[in-house]
Formats: sequence, structure tokens, C-alpha cells
Amino acid sequence: MPGAATDPHVVIVGGGFGGLHAARALAGRPVRVTLLDRRNHHLFQPLLYQVATAALNAADIATPLRSILRRATNVTVLLADVEKVDLAARRLDLDRGHMSYDALILAAGASHSYFGHGEWETLAPGLKTLEDALEIRRRVLLAYEAAEREEDGAEQGALLSFVVIGGGPTGVELAGALAEISRETIARDFRLIDPAKARIILVEGGPRVLSAFPETLSRRAERALQKIGVEVRTDAVVTRITPDAVWIGGEQIRARTVLWAAGVAATPLARSLGVPLDRSGRVLVDPDLSIPGHPEAFAIGDMCALTQEGRPLPGLAPVAIQEGRATAANVLRRLAGLPTRAFRYRDKGTMATIGRAAAVAVVGPLKLSGLIAWLAWLFVHIMFLIGFRNRFLVLFEWAWAYVTWHRGARLITRPWRPEPGER
Amino acid sequence: MPGAATDPHVVIVGGGFGGLHAARALAGRPVRVTLLDRRNHHLFQPLLYQVATAALNAADIATPLRSILRRATNVTVLLADVEKVDLAARRLDLDRGHMSYDALILAAGASHSYFGHGEWETLAPGLKTLEDALEIRRRVLLAYEAAEREEDGAEQGALLSFVVIGGGPTGVELAGALAEISRETIARDFRLIDPAKARIILVEGGPRVLSAFPETLSRRAERALQKIGVEVRTDAVVTRITPDAVWIGGEQIRARTVLWAAGVAATPLARSLGVPLDRSGRVLVDPDLSIPGHPEAFAIGDMCALTQEGRPLPGLAPVAIQEGRATAANVLRRLAGLPTRAFRYRDKGTMATIGRAAAVAVVGPLKLSGLIAWLAWLFVHIMFLIGFRNRFLVLFEWAWAYVTWHRGARLITRPWRPEPGER
Repeated sequence: MPGAATDPHVVIVGGGFGGLHAARALAGRPVRVTLLDRRNHHLFQPLLYQVATAALNAADIATPLRSILRRATNVTVLLADVEKVDLAARRLDLDRGHMSYDALILAAGASHSYFGHGEWETLAPGLKTLEDALEIRRRVLLAYEAAEREEDGAEQGALLSFVVIGGGPTGVELAGALAEISRETIARDFRLIDPAKARIILVEGGPRVLSAFPETLSRRAERALQKIGVEVRTDAVVTRITPDAVWIGGEQIRARTVLWAAGVAATPLARSLGVPLDRSGRVLVDPDLSIPGHPEAFAIGDMCALTQEGRPLPGLAPVAIQEGRATAANVLRRLAGLPTRAFRYRDKGTMATIGRAAAVAVVGPLKLSGLIAWLAWLFVHIMFLIGFRNRFLVLFEWAWAYVTWHRGARLITRPWRPEPGER
Repeated sequence: MPGAATDPHVVIVGGGFGGLHAARALAGRPVRVTLLDRRNHHLFQPLLYQVATAALNAADIATPLRSILRRATNVTVLLADVEKVDLAARRLDLDRGHMSYDALILAAGASHSYFGHGEWETLAPGLKTLEDALEIRRRVLLAYEAAEREEDGAEQGALLSFVVIGGGPTGVELAGALAEISRETIARDFRLIDPAKARIILVEGGPRVLSAFPETLSRRAERALQKIGVEVRTDAVVTRITPDAVWIGGEQIRARTVLWAAGVAATPLARSLGVPLDRSGRVLVDPDLSIPGHPEAFAIGDMCALTQEGRPLPGLAPVAIQEGRATAANVLRRLAGLPTRAFRYRDKGTMATIGRAAAVAVVGPLKLSGLIAWLAWLFVHIMFLIGFRNRFLVLFEWAWAYVTWHRGARLITRPWRPEPGER
């Protein structure tokens, strides 16, 4: 291990926004840091839907953790799966061997929740990892290919119907991008079908999309979606999903491609802790983000539940980043024998995009929509991306896509024949 | 089907260099063309090793066939698997349904040949498709990750040993790129291992690498490889491959990563034709590339065996491209009632690259090596790439890689734990 062997050992689990920013804040400090992740890359999740809809390459929004932390010589990155955390013994069970720690930062994120319908997972994949995004891309592109070969009209209609379940930012962004693909990108690529006639249906259980935003922005987002051809269904609770249809109560919508953007749940790792969790499986942390009864162990990002001014903090990248930095500072404070500080989230704004040149944003008292919100969204997301190469390439890809309506990454890289049971 | 319904139906099987250039040559002509492929993209195979070694993204060297042929309105692209060709009935059996033709161009390419050792396929993957390239990339990157976690010295050595079997252009290019990754790209990314100590071993059964080139260039290529750290083993026939070693006669080389670049065989589709094939399963075509006894059916590229001036034509992109164009012309000639013309390959040069800034090339009487050959290689390959976007991005990626020694695409996008039976 690098770093002085006598330095305290800080283990960070997860290289997402929270874990990575904690590691960066500990770089060069008198601690030995080990960052464990199951993937070799940090992922810029807010743009994942762009990989799913073939606008960006996987490499444009992901960077190997080793490259990001190359100069942080007191940080060791290891590809490992943490199977259990023993808080009392201060020890992790890995897929191979164990690891002890003096301080622990749990930042292992969240996965999809199907609200007790685990069987929907294969029928309606969600969007959390690069693999998810590539799988969604594959399904969407293959649906058009299959429609081009299909001679039965009803089946062709089902192939050209895309249902997105969940009207939060991810669902809105996915539906908007799918509409653009059908209306513009591939509109002239097929001979026998007209992709522009594809149905994109966004299904939301509550009364409006983007419920975390002010109501006026929800309405504007809904209109923007309708304008680009998305059918928005609110107060519509999905009761059943089959390989070729989605049911809203008694109503059946025939569709071969169904995507899930409705619910998240903390990683199962949280359950191994043996501490109180909230309904979504997130750790109910103390105000300094430490795990109650274990002041040397912290849970951050989507793994923790924290209430501020009576409202739970949302599962957003800025929250995780601020929590990562604050926790790194608290770890150092504790090791120096100082008291830790309570975490306080500073909201710098929230935004969601609706296809090309439309978005909604809330920045303090400001409510933005349309092109100005989209430009703000573009600027913030490009500036956030880690590493010059990605920033430049993403900008170029977007500029290029904007000018030509092409999507450069339209490749299907797995066998195209449906797997058994998949359809 | 577009195109006048009365126009003759030309079916092309395979969207590689041969099939794609045949389709392009038939665009706008009085024929209905259907291009069938199992993938949705055309692949620039000469740069596939760069995807395998994480220098380029999959999307940089592949373009959807639909985009390439968007303006060829008499060409329909279908994603389909051809299972059997019935030459007498002029009919193809597809994975679903059948298709009749008036003229047929078979351009389904080649796959790996393990010389009767089919069991080596999972132990030593070859490099023909994007999936192959991504699988090789995954294995190489995971070997370094596993070595970083390994405490046993001998096992760590096996993880850091990479054997490339086959000293043709693909093997030489792969070995050179692997050496560069270990010596430069990731040299400073690890804390516990020194990637620069990795062994890269190129094993060739014959007396010299690049046997299709003049002997002086073979020697220069060998020296260039040794200079960047590749161990070149000639006259070395692999007799056994196990999950952690390669055997050359009685000698054992411990290595966890073994890559296959030794042999190719025509696609099994050729066997379904019921016509004479050569040893590698390629169709022994007439001088006009038609299948003997079936003047309306042609086999081109890696699917056919043709001898010119006493030497078999090599399995290279320029050969397939020229054959595709010549065959399109012959199809039109036949349909117009004119006699077909014999195919004649015009050799414009051959080249192979050996890592950064070194290559060998033969252009007519000229034998080039070193930087000048590499610049020629770079120029030719970039100019050949289809589509401006790719050309620009590839150039940028290379320029960037050249300046920084970084490889942008170093992502592992499949679960990192070995699959059962894989190791």
C-alpha cells in the first residue's frame, strides 16, 4: 500500500459522484485511501440516457477511476465486490479476502426498484449502468430493424411502440430522446417502415411529470414533450407488463419495448449493515452522515437518507458530490481528534432536458424553460464532465448531432437475435 | 420493396468491404438490391485491433449500414441471418422466411480457424468482430486489475503475461499495441504492480513474422517489435493451450491472456452451397468470381479462393473492395445480356503497423519501414474510413493519444468477474 504504512486506512466503497469526490478530497492528506468499485470507471450518470439513445459513446461519459486518481498517490483503486460490511469489526468481506479500515465511506449508490414486481426487470430494463444503457440502445435499435422485416401490421405497431415508465428527469429525458430518434435521426434510413410514425408513450403514476419541479415547469415540460411527439399519460399506474404490452388498469398498450425509469432502491449492501434503513433501503444517517453508533463509518449519496428543512435530500449528483467532500473533511477532523460537522446541502439548481433545445431549470428563485434552460443545461453538463478529452468530444458530438441530426453511436454490439425468454 | 417492382432482384449477403462496395456500385442502377447482414454496421476491420487495445471506440470504426446506404433508394438493408443458399432454386433460407433472387453476391467473410483445436476458441479469442474486440479489451484490462490484487508472485506473473499467437499483420499489430499499453499508457496507473514489467510474447509458427512481406521488412518489423518490448518467437508451433499457459512443444509459457491471430476459415455458409471449396472452406470461383455452374451467383472477398499469376489473392480489404465493384459490374453486364469479365486485382500496396510511429509497407517496387511507412499507413487508413465523422474523430483520438499516451476508451463494460468456465 502506498502512503505511510502508519497512516490511518480510509476505505471508500463506490466510485460514483460521492465516492470519487471523497477520494479526491483525501488526496495528498495523511491517510491511506483504498477506493473499491465493481467497475473500473466513474460514470457521468446524468448523461447516461444519451448513451442509451445512441447520441454518445460509452467512453464519452465514463473515465477509468485509475486515470482520474493517477496523481493521488495515497489512493489505491481496486476492482472488487464488497459483499458485507461488519461495522463492529471494522472489516469488509470482499469477493476474495477481507479488508480492515479505520474509517469507512459507503457510497455504493442505488439500483432500480420495481416496487415488488421483480419479474418486470427483464421486460422493462432500467438505466443505472453503462451496460443498462447499451442494452436499452440495443433493444430500441433492434425494434426498428425487426419492424422493417415484419409483415403483420399489428405486430409492426407493437414493435414501433416505446413505453417509458416514470415521469421523473430520467423518464422525461429518455422519452424526449426516443422521439427525436424516430422523428429525425433515422427517419430516412428505412425503406418499408416510417420511423416517424413510432409511438413514444411516457407513463407517470402521479398527476404530473417532473414532480420535484414547480408545477408551472411540469406543465411546460409536458407541452414540450407533446410538441415533439411524446404521448404523456399522467395518473396512470402500470399494473402489468408482458413481453408485448403494458397495462394501465384495464387498458392495454401494445409495445415491444418498455423502459423503466420509475423507482430506485439503495444497493443491497445497505441491508448487510444491520442498522435502521428507510423504506427505500437507505441508511438513516446522523446529521454528519455517519452511521448511528458507528462514528467512523459514513454513508453518502443514494445510500443514505437525510432530511433537510423537513424535505428529504434528492438523489442527485450535486448532493452526492457535496456529501463526498463534507465526509472527507469529517473523516480528517475525526482522525485529528476534532468534532465532526453536520452536513448541509447547498442547492445550486436543478434541471431536466426535453430533447433538442428544450429544458426546464430551477436556479434559486428563477424558473427557466425552453432554449435558455437548455443552454444552461448544456453548459453545466459539459463543464461537469471529468477530463478534457471527454469534454471536447462530447461537445463535438453534440454540435455534430445538432447540425446533422445524426446519431453517431448507432451500433448494436451484441448478437441481434432475441435471447430465449427475452421477448 | 423500393425500386421498380419489375427490376431484377440482386441479393448481397454481408455488409463488409466486398458486399458494401458491391451495393454502392449498384446504387441508382435498374436493379432492386437487398443487402442482408447479421450486424447493423459496416466494420473497418483493419483498425479493429485498435478497439481491442482501447485506443479507439467501437463507434469510431463502425458505421450503420443504413446510414451509409441512406441515399441508395434502390437498396434495402435487412438485419437477417442467412442459414442456407439453394443455388438451384435461387433461394436463401433466412432465420425467418425465405428470399428469392435473380442475382446473388455472397460476401459473408471469414471467421477464425483453430486448425482442428476448436476447444482453444474460449481460451484464445480471435479478432473478427466488434464483440471480439471488446472481449479482448476486457480480458487485457481485467488482467492488470487482477494482478493489482494478486499476492502470489507466480500467479501475478501469469496475469501480466500476454501471448499473441500468429505473426501476420493482425498479430504484429496486436502485440505492438499491447506493448505500448503496458509501457506507456497505464504505466503510472497502478500502485502495487509495474505494468511495464508485463511480458508480451508474439508466437509465429513459420520462420518469420509478416511472411507475406519481403524478408527484409519482416526482419525490420521483428527488430521494431523487440525495441518496444515484444518477445518474438518464430518457428514456434503452439501445441497446447490451457487456462493459464501456452505450450510450444515441451516448453510452457505461463500466461492468463492468450489471443488468437493465426488462422481464418471461410464462413460455414460456404459449405451449404454444395460446390467445391478449398482447404480453408472458400469457394473455388471462376475467373469472373461466379460460382461454377451458377453464372448468376458470385462469391467474393474472404469467401472465395482465386489465384492470380500463380499466387492466391490475400484476404485483404482492397481485394474485397475491388471484387465487390467488379462483381456489381458483372451482375449488370449479365442482366443486360453481355458477357462477364474476368476479375483482375490491382495491388496498390500492403502495409502493417508496429505500434507508435513504426510500420512496414510495400508499394509496388518500394519497400518502406519506420516513421515514413507509419505516416503512409496513417494517411491511407484515415482516408479509407467511411464517413466524415469517423474520420475526424479517429484523427483526433490518435492525435490526442500521440500527445498524451492516454487511451481514451479504457472501459470494461461487462461484468468483471470471470464467467463460469472462462478461466
